Amino acid sequence: MQSILIHRFDNGLQLLAEQMDYLESVAFSLQVPGGYVYDPDDREGLANFTCEMALRGCGERSARQFIEDLDNLGVNYNSGVASEFAGFRGAMASAMLDPALELVADFVRRPHLPADQLEDGRLVCQQEIRALDDDVAQQMMLELRRRTFNAPYGRAHHGTLESLASITLGDIRGFFEKMYRPDGAVLSVAGKFDWNHLIERIESLLGDWSGVENFEPVVSPPTAGDLHIEYPSNQTHIGLSYAAPSYIEDDYFPARAAVGVLADGMTSRFFTEVREKRGLVYSVGASYDSLRDAGAVFCYASSTTDRAQETLDVMRAELVRLGEGIEPDELDRLKVQLKTGLLMEQESSRSRCATLVGDWRLLGRVRTRNEVLSLVEGLTCEAVNAWLAENPPRDFRVVTIGKKALESPDAVS
Amino acid sequence: MQSILIHRFDNGLQLLAEQMDYLESVAFSLQVPGGYVYDPDDREGLANFTCEMALRGCGERSARQFIEDLDNLGVNYNSGVASEFAGFRGAMASAMLDPALELVADFVRRPHLPADQLEDGRLVCQQEIRALDDDVAQQMMLELRRRTFNAPYGRAHHGTLESLASITLGDIRGFFEKMYRPDGAVLSVAGKFDWNHLIERIESLLGDWSGVENFEPVVSPPTAGDLHIEYPSNQTHIGLSYAAPSYIEDDYFPARAAVGVLADGMTSRFFTEVREKRGLVYSVGASYDSLRDAGAVFCYASSTTDRAQETLDVMRAELVRLGEGIEPDELDRLKVQLKTGLLMEQESSRSRCATLVGDWRLLGRVRTRNEVLSLVEGLTCEAVNAWLAENPPRDFRVVTIGKKALESPDAVS
Repeated sequence: MQSILIHRFDNGLQLLAEQMDYLESVAFSLQVPGGYVYDPDDREGLANFTCEMALRGCGERSARQFIEDLDNLGVNYNSGVASEFAGFRGAMASAMLDPALELVADFVRRPHLPADQLEDGRLVCQQEIRALDDDVAQQMMLELRRRTFNAPYGRAHHGTLESLASITLGDIRGFFEKMYRPDGAVLSVAGKFDWNHLIERIESLLGDWSGVENFEPVVSPPTAGDLHIEYPSNQTHIGLSYAAPSYIEDDYFPARAAVGVLADGMTSRFFTEVREKRGLVYSVGASYDSLRDAGAVFCYASSTTDRAQETLDVMRAELVRLGEGIEPDELDRLKVQLKTGLLMEQESSRSRCATLVGDWRLLGRVRTRNEVLSLVEGLTCEAVNAWLAENPPRDFRVVTIGKKALESPDAVS
Repeated sequence: MQSILIHRFDNGLQLLAEQMDYLESVAFSLQVPGGYVYDPDDREGLANFTCEMALRGCGERSARQFIEDLDNLGVNYNSGVASEFAGFRGAMASAMLDPALELVADFVRRPHLPADQLEDGRLVCQQEIRALDDDVAQQMMLELRRRTFNAPYGRAHHGTLESLASITLGDIRGFFEKMYRPDGAVLSVAGKFDWNHLIERIESLLGDWSGVENFEPVVSPPTAGDLHIEYPSNQTHIGLSYAAPSYIEDDYFPARAAVGVLADGMTSRFFTEVREKRGLVYSVGASYDSLRDAGAVFCYASSTTDRAQETLDVMRAELVRLGEGIEPDELDRLKVQLKTGLLMEQESSRSRCATLVGDWRLLGRVRTRNEVLSLVEGLTCEAVNAWLAENPPRDFRVVTIGKKALESPDAVS
């Protein structure tokens, strides 16, 4: 029996927890408003830079003391920003949760954001961008996202070398003051812990945390058009995207099933047609990305220059064929895979933590395993095909990077 | 209480199992002799190509039927070759283990290795090599391994475009006949299962599998010297290696502790000195790789062209400083991290499966969690420092890729 527990503190902080007493570990994930969609247009990368600086000392601890204390507790942790949130995650032995939460509270409430580490922090953020120089697949995906999701949701979290150069300590402190607040923050805990004690502990650490302003980013359409980036490589990286329902829409599950038939595993259509039958690529895939108000499917492959056009053509043909419907045996296989995935997730405190907070962020509630199971079980070929008939994959955005631009039949000539 | 079970079948097949009844999943890992060290020198990539072909139909199943049946069972699987073994791994809901094992048996005993899929399989293997064109960090590591481990252990598993082109169906069938045999094969199972039933099941599927020849690869020294590869990127990728004890040696744990202080996590010396204090890189690290008869530490970083020399110099300086000893608080932190890692591993059927088979392959036996815990607990600063005094990191091999070659103080001028 799954045990999901929910508590909202007076200051707006939302606590979600799942007891998994068969584990000895516990994981947490804290998300505060402070994602990259709140970057001012002339300060892209500010959210990421702020998150980097928040680790450089907080509360009574120096930067060094903070990470040493986390290591001394055996907390396996990381931090970073997503579109709407800055997050801090960790997993550890169950007994270490109490002291770890004290460090988490310092991170979100009392970072020093020290002037003498500003340039070191800036260098690290800039190195993250420079490392992209050799990661052309990632460059391609960033450009594709920008052409798929509305701005600022489609932007890169790390900004540009130029925008980072212009960020001041005042910008960082201002961003922190405005964004790192309990109203809109979500903390999830999964694994072995005592629920009543957890509430008390968090009340004492975060109960008097305050700040209630809400900010909505100003939204504008995605960057228009397709893009080819000239690059002197023998490989061409191909990205193709199209719109899909967000996780909160009723249509999500049929849409997700269709993408599964397209690209999940070695029996998927992409793997079969692009790799196994034609040997066009070593890897080909698609991922379904859902924000709150929009979703999209991102397809990708890389092939040699001379076979890249055929690769893109076969991918397009498979997307058109997907619109014509899926077969019952394809759906049956996918359902088994999705159900096995749910079972595996239930054995990992980290995975459950991520799902709890993801559900809450998108749905405003948590789906139980049984609820998801019955949504998966309830999928029928008829329903998926009816949905596909109304919503065939279309209006593709294409970004390529390599020696030669590719032809797109639906490009405006 | 950890429950590790061991059974050797008459034909030499070794079964290792660990009951984890708190899970609902089960994982398996089967390794047969057939790794890339057995590739003939003029047929590099043969082991990998054979493994690719073995998935293309076996027993009474066509290539398509085989992967469909795996998907129908919800088996999350993959296959591939390592230095000495070809492996097939999977994880699934516990109830699906029985039918999955039938597929595993077909894979290792009755692959069709069909002539009509030879060219498709070759293309896939070649695409794996071509995908390296844009993965310069991986190119660097491959060259570094070749200069660190004896041939053929240091070679790339995928061969070259030329060697792949020369491989015939006869080569593949000959390799399969010679190498895919029970003597030297190891099967591990971890998660929820019934031990007596498992033995019976495997006896009926693999008990009459035969073949007992043993082959030892002909060993020769590593490729000599350092290497710089010219590449028109703004990033320089730096790899540096040095010899270390293998996992079977008594010195392994002090050596592993030293590498942990050097590179595990955000309080490690590399992270602190190379990234946090100087902002030279976005990521820097080191990994400890152990074969049966040799071990090595591989350090890596990537920086911009103009800061690459400083990055390498700081890495070298840290390696020299490591030889001078570690501090008690560094070791204490590392011990907590290693112990937390053991606890997390115990919650994953897949991780335990990999460790069982890895232990057996290197040690010829399985270490219990308590045994590893007491080895970790038993580490003292004195012992680690005594070992480091005798065995400071030295005789570095360096491979770089980027616009400019770097200077090495110990290079022969």
